[in-house]
Amino acid sequence: MTAVVNRASGTVPASPAAALVCRNCGANYPLGPQHACFECFGPLEIGYDAARLASVTRAGIEAGPNSIWRYSGLLPAGQDPSTRVDSGTGMTPLIRADELGARLGFTAPLWVKDDSANPTHSFKDRVVSVAITAARELGFTRIACASTGNLANSVAAHAARIGMDSIVFIPSDLESAKVTQTAVYGGTLVAVEGSYDDVNRLCSELSETDEFERTAFVNVNVRPYYAEGSKTLGFEVAEQLGWRLPQQVVAPMASGSLLTKVNKAFKEMVSIGLVEASDYRVYGAQSAGCSPIATAFVNGTDTVVPVKPTGIAKSLNIGNPADGPYALDAVRSTGGAMAFVDDEQIRAGIQLLAETTGVFAETAGGVTTAVLQKLVESGQLDTSRETVIYNTGDGLKTIDAVSDRVSPTAVIPPTVKGMRAAGLL
Amino acid sequence: MTAVVNRASGTVPASPAAALVCRNCGANYPLGPQHACFECFGPLEIGYDAARLASVTRAGIEAGPNSIWRYSGLLPAGQDPSTRVDSGTGMTPLIRADELGARLGFTAPLWVKDDSANPTHSFKDRVVSVAITAARELGFTRIACASTGNLANSVAAHAARIGMDSIVFIPSDLESAKVTQTAVYGGTLVAVEGSYDDVNRLCSELSETDEFERTAFVNVNVRPYYAEGSKTLGFEVAEQLGWRLPQQVVAPMASGSLLTKVNKAFKEMVSIGLVEASDYRVYGAQSAGCSPIATAFVNGTDTVVPVKPTGIAKSLNIGNPADGPYALDAVRSTGGAMAFVDDEQIRAGIQLLAETTGVFAETAGGVTTAVLQKLVESGQLDTSRETVIYNTGDGLKTIDAVSDRVSPTAVIPPTVKGMRAAGLL
Repeated sequence: MTAVVNRASGTVPASPAAALVCRNCGANYPLGPQHACFECFGPLEIGYDAARLASVTRAGIEAGPNSIWRYSGLLPAGQDPSTRVDSGTGMTPLIRADELGARLGFTAPLWVKDDSANPTHSFKDRVVSVAITAARELGFTRIACASTGNLANSVAAHAARIGMDSIVFIPSDLESAKVTQTAVYGGTLVAVEGSYDDVNRLCSELSETDEFERTAFVNVNVRPYYAEGSKTLGFEVAEQLGWRLPQQVVAPMASGSLLTKVNKAFKEMVSIGLVEASDYRVYGAQSAGCSPIATAFVNGTDTVVPVKPTGIAKSLNIGNPADGPYALDAVRSTGGAMAFVDDEQIRAGIQLLAETTGVFAETAGGVTTAVLQKLVESGQLDTSRETVIYNTGDGLKTIDAVSDRVSPTAVIPPTVKGMRAAGLL
Repeated sequence: MTAVVNRASGTVPASPAAALVCRNCGANYPLGPQHACFECFGPLEIGYDAARLASVTRAGIEAGPNSIWRYSGLLPAGQDPSTRVDSGTGMTPLIRADELGARLGFTAPLWVKDDSANPTHSFKDRVVSVAITAARELGFTRIACASTGNLANSVAAHAARIGMDSIVFIPSDLESAKVTQTAVYGGTLVAVEGSYDDVNRLCSELSETDEFERTAFVNVNVRPYYAEGSKTLGFEVAEQLGWRLPQQVVAPMASGSLLTKVNKAFKEMVSIGLVEASDYRVYGAQSAGCSPIATAFVNGTDTVVPVKPTGIAKSLNIGNPADGPYALDAVRSTGGAMAFVDDEQIRAGIQLLAETTGVFAETAGGVTTAVLQKLVESGQLDTSRETVIYNTGDGLKTIDAVSDRVSPTAVIPPTVKGMRAAGLL
């Protein structure tokens, strides 16, 4: 399969992507829909032309659209606005969390990067925007994914937006809001009796069949493109802070890819001079029901032992995380830490974040908030250093996590007398 | 009560707001927390200093923040960025709806203004941003509202964000997602046994009590400020179209305020030269379960007869709409029309919008889409004229409206064999 986009017109900037590079053995391959190394089966990622990356400037970015596509010079697809899928994803609010900081004893600023503001209300709109753009450029005619829910929402919505066929695979026990939000867009939705890891394995098998030759599985055969979308979570925070890096970031981990790519984004920005080099620490958050990466960190090993996920943080329930070793490396090499929290702490974390910042997060955001609190209490995270936490999803999708913990203060008849009787006047 | 903000520094642009003006008899009052005329009990709205409005330029707006506050020169509060509550509300996507247009036979462009992209996922974040900013400037210490749900979400979230006390009143039969999303922010939430109109009446009574003297009811005593926030839905569409007005707009109606203010925004932009004058038509959408304004239109009367609301479009269920007569005037004076649709059409409208645009709307968006379709079919809306429809809320909040209509295409075991058995391979 070859690229269908004619870049010869001279008006479209060349893509900075130069090759696919094995993250394990360093082998190089031409750009295309390949995700594993033929030599060692290691995962591939996008390698860039250093000179093209270095041509990206702050002014050029600031003059771009108010979406992730302002960073197209640092992404592997979408240089041509006419092939780009711009759903308005990105440039989500970076919110000062002074009250949360005060409650946790912060003396330095604390911020929440709120990705529930994306079109389908999760960070997955970033990776899908890049993946579906790349898929179209590579000539695919259908888009697909294995998903714990948010990715399903995003793939189905983006496909509907641009009129592309979609087929989405989910575990059959997902939160009902995520099922409905995917099904409503009218693509094909397949509920698979099994865990996310079972679903993912099935998608890998299907991607090798003739019937799926023209189908781009965003997190399988075009995963190198897809994963780069998460870098924009790093780019935006640095730009929103006035072109500098925060001193500490806390990110949730499912496959471990998001955290790894935020770290990659910070390094790229330094290397091409968009921000000054500075010490920063990367922290990773998981739930106790699925903590293979954080457990490896706590045990001081490099080996991520797969687990069978349980617990309410379903969007993080990847028992065999593809980027676990790379996440461990990002955290250890920057002097950060990892921790995990149980379901009760996750629910409390959702409430704490909502009450102090007005951000209603899904369970993954509860994990991140509760892990922030835990790392502060253990002294592993420094409250005198400026810190950014990532909220990656929306509380409306996991409403059951808190619906039995919060309720109206009072139920009254529609009278002033009723107000008095309830002690509210 | 007097303003607590010192505007004497000279660095803060003066507010363009000059007075409160009775929409019924034209009487003028000084700016402040007053919403009804002492002479005739008519509703008050903000009157502006024409010269100050005229000083607003396209370039000035474009250089402003990427939120509703870029239009602060046309709003009654928030000229001082330090008192402004900027939650990132506004500048929501204006989406080309080519597939929806094709299905309905449009030859001109059709667009969806998608306000589910706001922080709490409805257009209410616009009016609340302005109301809470005004309330703070006016010295209030607590914020309150009567709400059909979305306003409750927004008031509670904004109050949590800035650390202000809040007390929110809702009908006790609201959708559970809206109740949970309000309660989670930790303010006081009062469920009232009655309709929205009962809740609203109670809030009017409470606003006159000593105990609520320092409480700003966003849609009662600071309603003139609050309502102006909806103008930004008009400003943004014109700016996003490249500084010109659309030829037709379709907006949902609850109180009728939103539609009225979009019309006011268009007129203001013309009067100060931000856009050229052009013919445009305003169309209004209601549900059959609560259609007092649309029924008056259909019957050709000026009298809006209050109704007892029923039906699934709860966010539009205001049986005694305060701005009904003004909405009728806006529609009639521009040559538009009004219509209403039943619950089955609303559900189908949600699906049609989702499948063709990737926008998952709440019931109000289903109303607007279904009314668009109805007006096209009746020939009242011209498919050869460029049209914008407003989606004001998010499907995740009214998930029950479609959850029994959509479902996975198939449920399969996690095997390729399972795919074949389901006819998917």
